[in-house]
Amino acid sequence: MDLLKRFAQGELGLGRTEAFSDGVFAIVVTLLVLELKVPALHDRSSTGELGRQLVDLLPKFLSWLISFIIVCKFWLNHHHLLTFARHATYGMIWLNSIFLMGQSFIPFPTALMGEYPMNMLAVSLFGAVMAVNTLLFIALQSYILRNLLKPEMFGAVVPHLARKSFVGVISYLLGVAATFFDVRIAFVLYALTPLFFVTPPQPRTVNS
Amino acid sequence: MDLLKRFAQGELGLGRTEAFSDGVFAIVVTLLVLELKVPALHDRSSTGELGRQLVDLLPKFLSWLISFIIVCKFWLNHHHLLTFARHATYGMIWLNSIFLMGQSFIPFPTALMGEYPMNMLAVSLFGAVMAVNTLLFIALQSYILRNLLKPEMFGAVVPHLARKSFVGVISYLLGVAATFFDVRIAFVLYALTPLFFVTPPQPRTVNS
Amino acid sequence: MDLLKRFAQGELGLGRTEAFSDGVFAIVVTLLVLELKVPALHDRSSTGELGRQLVDLLPKFLSWLISFIIVCKFWLNHHHLLTFARHATYGMIWLNSIFLMGQSFIPFPTALMGEYPMNMLAVSLFGAVMAVNTLLFIALQSYILRNLLKPEMFGAVVPHLARKSFVGVISYLLGVAATFFDVRIAFVLYALTPLFFVTPPQPRTVNS
Amino acid sequence: MDLLKRFAQGELGLGRTEAFSDGVFAIVVTLLVLELKVPALHDRSSTGELGRQLVDLLPKFLSWLISFIIVCKFWLNHHHLLTFARHATYGMIWLNSIFLMGQSFIPFPTALMGEYPMNMLAVSLFGAVMAVNTLLFIALQSYILRNLLKPEMFGAVVPHLARKSFVGVISYLLGVAATFFDVRIAFVLYALTPLFFVTPPQPRTVNS
Repeated sequence: MDLLKRFAQGELGLGRTEAFSDGVFAIVVTLLVLELKVPALHDRSSTGELGRQLVDLLPKFLSWLISFIIVCKFWLNHHHLLTFARHATYGMIWLNSIFLMGQSFIPFPTALMGEYPMNMLAVSLFGAVMAVNTLLFIALQSYILRNLLKPEMFGAVVPHLARKSFVGVISYLLGVAATFFDVRIAFVLYALTPLFFVTPPQPRTVNS
Repeated sequence: MDLLKRFAQGELGLGRTEAFSDGVFAIVVTLLVLELKVPALHDRSSTGELGRQLVDLLPKFLSWLISFIIVCKFWLNHHHLLTFARHATYGMIWLNSIFLMGQSFIPFPTALMGEYPMNMLAVSLFGAVMAVNTLLFIALQSYILRNLLKPEMFGAVVPHLARKSFVGVISYLLGVAATFFDVRIAFVLYALTPLFFVTPPQPRTVNS
Repeated sequence: MDLLKRFAQGELGLGRTEAFSDGVFAIVVTLLVLELKVPALHDRSSTGELGRQLVDLLPKFLSWLISFIIVCKFWLNHHHLLTFARHATYGMIWLNSIFLMGQSFIPFPTALMGEYPMNMLAVSLFGAVMAVNTLLFIALQSYILRNLLKPEMFGAVVPHLARKSFVGVISYLLGVAATFFDVRIAFVLYALTPLFFVTPPQPRTVNS
Repeated sequence: MDLLKRFAQGELGLGRTEAFSDGVFAIVVTLLVLELKVPALHDRSSTGELGRQLVDLLPKFLSWLISFIIVCKFWLNHHHLLTFARHATYGMIWLNSIFLMGQSFIPFPTALMGEYPMNMLAVSLFGAVMAVNTLLFIALQSYILRNLLKPEMFGAVVPHLARKSFVGVISYLLGVAATFFDVRIAFVLYALTPLFFVTPPQPRTVNS
């Protein structure tokens, strides 16, 4: 368990971890649009043909929109979470890196679901990836709250936070299950899930 | 209306919102150039053939140029706007995220207009997307000036700012309308519109 | 030797060097996923066909995963290293730029190994590039510790650090050699090598 | 003339201009590698075929290398230049944005020269774009030194700096002219030109 001891070491400032994370988040949301490819037209000046091709791109627009909102929600919660940390240890940096690995993977299932919106496996994979991303966030959150919590932030920690965070995981997995009935239910569930944590949970919200 | 109350919460520093936004802006302007693809030549050493192919790329160069200037203008006004904010609330962060979603979408209509510069729909879509982006900026601006204005910046707010900001929306929509007559008028209007806010409006400019 | 004197000049803050480096690291790890292309399906709703195609992508997933971990490890060690520097000289900035050039090259051998996982040359090249990247890091490390060490960090420098850092180089080169026997051994070695510096070496770890 | 007065306005901090610029620089250098495409092999495990294909990529490697060094040189000089500025005006921000537009364009001529290294026009265009980029840098430099120079940096300004900076422009244009004789001379000139400003010019270097 020498490795565990090594991970608990390190007292690095949070600045570069935030900069690296913000860079990854910014690139992920911006790369998403690259899947929207300019359609090939036979008649280059035909508005009717271009219009029909743009309508065919609707599932890609929708996938892009859902992913964009989800990544922004992760970014906001990540931002909120890091205000709780005193500093960064190597363990936290690695949990953060693995969380960012999950985020940087998002363009792939987004493109897959956009290309094959009626394919059960493609739509399931999207939900599964988002569930895993939520788990990776919960892992980072638990580590920080347990090991790196600033004393003055003690009162701002929401009780039973981990349990509440699992609502997102379950909701994405319900979307995965819904693909067995109708992929459209999955799309709806994926679009609604980020609303659970559209604002980071606040102790005051709980009390009021 | 619990949701509205939740959005008014949060007192986050502006640093990471600026870093995330700057990342998105920087990636958007740099991705624009990816639409300029190396042409395929039959005679690889022919300067004449390459020259003709580069001339054919002119509409793409022009779309790239116009979009670059527009995004830089949004960046400058965003930079200026955020100097007015005391801090970030969740509501502001979401309005900012949706504004950035609009910015990150810009490479798509840019590529479309560059590929089909004579297609009315392609050229209209560019103007419509820019009009929506301007509206998203106005929404963010109104929210910040109404809810998060630093007391010491009160005197720096331009009177009737929202009304003035709509000039950009109208100008882009005039470009959309112009495509019914001649797409070239639309190109000219799109290129001229960023000049309205090439520098953020100043109270002193108004008074003098 | 006038050139050497010029490189020793310059007393720039570390902020922008860190920002530029973090940008490059963030883009490199995020671009890696672009190699995971959406497969083309004959039957667009077939989960079986999509499943088989995803299984065929496994070598690309694996290459992506290994490279992601390696780049994150470089990022962490780079972060740790720069806490030792008083400021930046031109020489340090150029060593850093050349190191970043090596990092930005990583998507190419990663894509090559992912596409041709059974091709000895493709798999060797990956290891060779990582060995060169490690050497570039050692060069930057030696320069900073020799010329720019903060006095208060003197006690935090690990003895025989350069020698220890060569373990990574040798391990990657063993992977290159292993391709002559079985490329799978090379994959295993590449995946294990970042564990050597999964946390930057600490004097305390050495003493305990 | 009202426009000129508007550009002279604005007193923005330099932080976001630096962040936006660093983002663009980082993305430009990292996008350059995307031109190195994985070659298609008939025999997927043939090291000989892959080796020959990699040798064919040499002009692309070379273009990538030259552009990387040139952009890093621009980054370093930009970094150095901005330490002279008190703050940012709108005029400076626009000169900076147009300079960044030039930087973000670099991947296109780099890809063109890498694809058609024996095509006079392709190789000329590279030099012409670099000459224009140098001119854009000189414009930014002149504006800052004339209008925004920090009083305490007065002694650090090199005499006749603008004139010295034109050496780079002339050197790139000599490369353009050299393509009429032999494109290889142009490659050599392009590779050597960044050495002129490999370190920002120092008054002390001049005096000694």
